[in-house]
Amino acid sequence: MQKTANNGFEGEVPDVVVGRMPIYLRALLLLNSQGIELVSSHELGALLDITPAQIRKDLSYFGRFGKQGKGYRVHHLSSAIREVLGVGPGTQWPVALVGVGSLGLALLGYPNFGREGFRIVEAFDVNPSQIGRRVGGLTIRPINELNEALSQSGVKIAIVAVPGSQAQQVVDQLIAAGIKAVLNYAPYSPRVPDGVRVSNIDPVLSLQAMAYFVKGGTN
Amino acid sequence: MQKTANNGFEGEVPDVVVGRMPIYLRALLLLNSQGIELVSSHELGALLDITPAQIRKDLSYFGRFGKQGKGYRVHHLSSAIREVLGVGPGTQWPVALVGVGSLGLALLGYPNFGREGFRIVEAFDVNPSQIGRRVGGLTIRPINELNEALSQSGVKIAIVAVPGSQAQQVVDQLIAAGIKAVLNYAPYSPRVPDGVRVSNIDPVLSLQAMAYFVKGGTN
Repeated sequence: MQKTANNGFEGEVPDVVVGRMPIYLRALLLLNSQGIELVSSHELGALLDITPAQIRKDLSYFGRFGKQGKGYRVHHLSSAIREVLGVGPGTQWPVALVGVGSLGLALLGYPNFGREGFRIVEAFDVNPSQIGRRVGGLTIRPINELNEALSQSGVKIAIVAVPGSQAQQVVDQLIAAGIKAVLNYAPYSPRVPDGVRVSNIDPVLSLQAMAYFVKGGTN
Repeated sequence: MQKTANNGFEGEVPDVVVGRMPIYLRALLLLNSQGIELVSSHELGALLDITPAQIRKDLSYFGRFGKQGKGYRVHHLSSAIREVLGVGPGTQWPVALVGVGSLGLALLGYPNFGREGFRIVEAFDVNPSQIGRRVGGLTIRPINELNEALSQSGVKIAIVAVPGSQAQQVVDQLIAAGIKAVLNYAPYSPRVPDGVRVSNIDPVLSLQAMAYFVKGGTN
């Protein structure tokens, strides 16, 4: 990656820009798998419904990619974005899962985590019928072992798939055990201190927003 | 809902504003369940990490709510937002599900859809071992019956939980059968014509963006 000195930008990269990087990476990996070697910001923009100017500006936060009129080298840019995000080849972020109900089980079996830089290494539940069960090479542990299991482990990322009523308490426990990023599937937005990231995945919120458009807006 | 005539805004409400309405609704329902009757934009903003000015501006697209210095009446505002979104009490949007693997099964059993205005009424799969199986009151149908089942049914919203390689084809079939909004869990962003909405839920994209922050940004 050609990293320009500071690149004219001061301070942190905006969250929304960081949030688009995985989307660019996903598209570039798809193009690469189709044997495409060069892509312009216009082509990438058309694929993703993002303006070419936005793409160029987003990427400029991280370095100078592509050449005027030539476009981006697909493989090179995807490698650079992987490096920016910390999900380079061979990297596997260890992840803890809390809540092994039907959603948690589906997540334990999700093949894309492994392919894209993440591996669930610990799974916890409160349900006695789940504790001790072996799933996908892991033994589900009781949640009261969470702190002991994670504090020394270096695991920084957790996935929460518990009912909404338990989400805040579980997130608090995770943070006490050193977790810095939470992917939250519970239908409740947990509060976290500065320095901890939460990303909420809630299908109901998406469905409700789409319902607005399907019914034809405010009319 | 006190709807002011046009309210000074022309044209459509921005997507991001619509996208925040379910988040406000979720917070208001929580406050309501706690017996809280009035909330200021400052309090709501602190709860959601959104500026009070943003909240007031967002809500102003849909009407005049709250009184200067008095805040919003929680129950009234939540009812108004439900109405705006088309998820008022008693409303149940019928939803079709395509893909009944472990994630699809988890979605079929997800209790929050029913509570929040949605009900899966048809489920399709390609896997012969799933077809004909009864889950949660539904019989899983072969995907080649999708067009027949949906075209006349008035179902406008679908959830896609198939592998990435099949997502575009499935979405094309859904659109041909009259679907106008797709909640997509496949790790691939399907292309759709104007007038159709897609909302992609992809845990890998969220995890990758968080990995950037956990590793400490660009350093």
